[in-house]
Amino acid sequence: MSLLTVGSVAFDAIETPFGKTDKIIGGAGTYIALAASFYNNKQNIVSVVGEDFPEEMLNQLKNRNVNLEGLQIKKGEKTFFWSGKYHNDMNSRDTLVTELNVLEHFNPTIPDSYQGCDYLMLGNLSPQVQRQVIERLTVRPKLIAMDTMNFWMDIAMDDLKETLKLIDVLIINDEEARQLSNEYALVKAAKVIRAMGPKYLIIKKGEHGALLFHGDHMFFAPALPLEEVFDPTGAGDTFAGGFMGYIASTQDISFESMKRAIINGSALASFCVEEFGTERLMNITKKDLEERIEEFVALTNFDMVQVIS
Amino acid sequence: MSLLTVGSVAFDAIETPFGKTDKIIGGAGTYIALAASFYNNKQNIVSVVGEDFPEEMLNQLKNRNVNLEGLQIKKGEKTFFWSGKYHNDMNSRDTLVTELNVLEHFNPTIPDSYQGCDYLMLGNLSPQVQRQVIERLTVRPKLIAMDTMNFWMDIAMDDLKETLKLIDVLIINDEEARQLSNEYALVKAAKVIRAMGPKYLIIKKGEHGALLFHGDHMFFAPALPLEEVFDPTGAGDTFAGGFMGYIASTQDISFESMKRAIINGSALASFCVEEFGTERLMNITKKDLEERIEEFVALTNFDMVQVIS
Repeated sequence: MSLLTVGSVAFDAIETPFGKTDKIIGGAGTYIALAASFYNNKQNIVSVVGEDFPEEMLNQLKNRNVNLEGLQIKKGEKTFFWSGKYHNDMNSRDTLVTELNVLEHFNPTIPDSYQGCDYLMLGNLSPQVQRQVIERLTVRPKLIAMDTMNFWMDIAMDDLKETLKLIDVLIINDEEARQLSNEYALVKAAKVIRAMGPKYLIIKKGEHGALLFHGDHMFFAPALPLEEVFDPTGAGDTFAGGFMGYIASTQDISFESMKRAIINGSALASFCVEEFGTERLMNITKKDLEERIEEFVALTNFDMVQVIS
Repeated sequence: MSLLTVGSVAFDAIETPFGKTDKIIGGAGTYIALAASFYNNKQNIVSVVGEDFPEEMLNQLKNRNVNLEGLQIKKGEKTFFWSGKYHNDMNSRDTLVTELNVLEHFNPTIPDSYQGCDYLMLGNLSPQVQRQVIERLTVRPKLIAMDTMNFWMDIAMDDLKETLKLIDVLIINDEEARQLSNEYALVKAAKVIRAMGPKYLIIKKGEHGALLFHGDHMFFAPALPLEEVFDPTGAGDTFAGGFMGYIASTQDISFESMKRAIINGSALASFCVEEFGTERLMNITKKDLEERIEEFVALTNFDMVQVIS
């Protein structure tokens, strides 16, 4: 079915303990669309780039059945650029450069051909832009998922809370959940956040896996323990893209289906961190993904025969 | 079957953000024996206390089928005492007082009635004492598990490595695994540590669950996400006691059985942290434990129907 992704298509420059890159392709929208392309969906993207963005990458997305009609290319302007340096533990990073460029005055436009899309993934952007997209859709999608970050909690909390009322699934990390809820324990944080609107909450804990909360239900999926995390950039967006790509292709928004979607997102994210940027995602096959999902099953599967007597 | 536990039986004084205690009952041996008492085993304990240790607690252990013949009561001496204060995140703590007392010259004695025990759990003690216990058993147990801590890596690494050659299952936390192996990534750390002797390695990650490594197999069990961790003292020992209690009662040391043993240990540990010291463990029933294990099944269970097309 049709999945609409809204998110940045951008340049990153990354430094990790293992090396550093020049400007490479990044952006939440890019990672989400790439991850979702492993499933059988009609994909649309709403985003903006400058005229400096390489046509080759746009063709790669087209080849993966991503419709780029909603991707604005601003003549005479430059693409969003972020540069960061990861610390030795790979869990924290310093932002070195943020050049908003085309994102500064981004006004999302929804082509007619996108109207009626079934599933919507709002990548991390200003909550105002995220809300504009929802408002500009003539029919509400069956499921709206969204990412956000501490930055918007610091400078636009009211706006963020308005947008949270309109969505179904919030996908954030543990630090963000703590800041948004003012609660340290994630079980308590989840209650507070779900009272803000989202019926489903996914809290990503990086190398420690992810939790899904809905009603009285809770599901936990581990991250795959890896020998080496080469570059964590984009792992969260890849997770979200895998999650929504799976949901859209199955058209099943039950809790059981969401569990499987989280395993799919986790599996794709485990590839993402193996090389710089989008490199690994561009080179894996559906078979690679299936094999990795088998690893997740082996990692977590147990058969409880209780023998307390 | 018969489980022999070696570990401290002691006094603790604990301060957490939720309150503080006077001297209460603690010690690795106490927690291990209490946790293992939920399974149908003949339990023996090797330990030492001073004459200040309350007879009431010893009776409680006897009532739970723990044979105390190997528990030395030193006339005119005082029981081991530890006092600590947890930080607000409950993941780190400062030791305020350590009084070794009877533990300083602990010479473990194995009563004849303990000889031929099938399963051995070596709680955190000096690696030399742990080795003495193994050497003083006339028949090697079917499975020997052991805990240790950073302290012994700092002051007695060679001794520790000697003991590691004699055991089957090492149960330590993530920081300890990193220090012991000099590797940050746990997958790499696990390889290094297993080359030191233990065929099985369990790495506890506190609120982030536990990993089991054996051969090419890896299993991950989450910790139950809790609204409140009241006091983490003894959670690791409770985990180990539940693990070995389950193994001893099933007499099944297959990888599949160890997975179930880890879920049992995790469930018992999730009770332990709900109140100060041993309080919660003393008051739960086998039915409570069974219900909590059901919560673990619900938390982690998914049915993978892959739909990549």
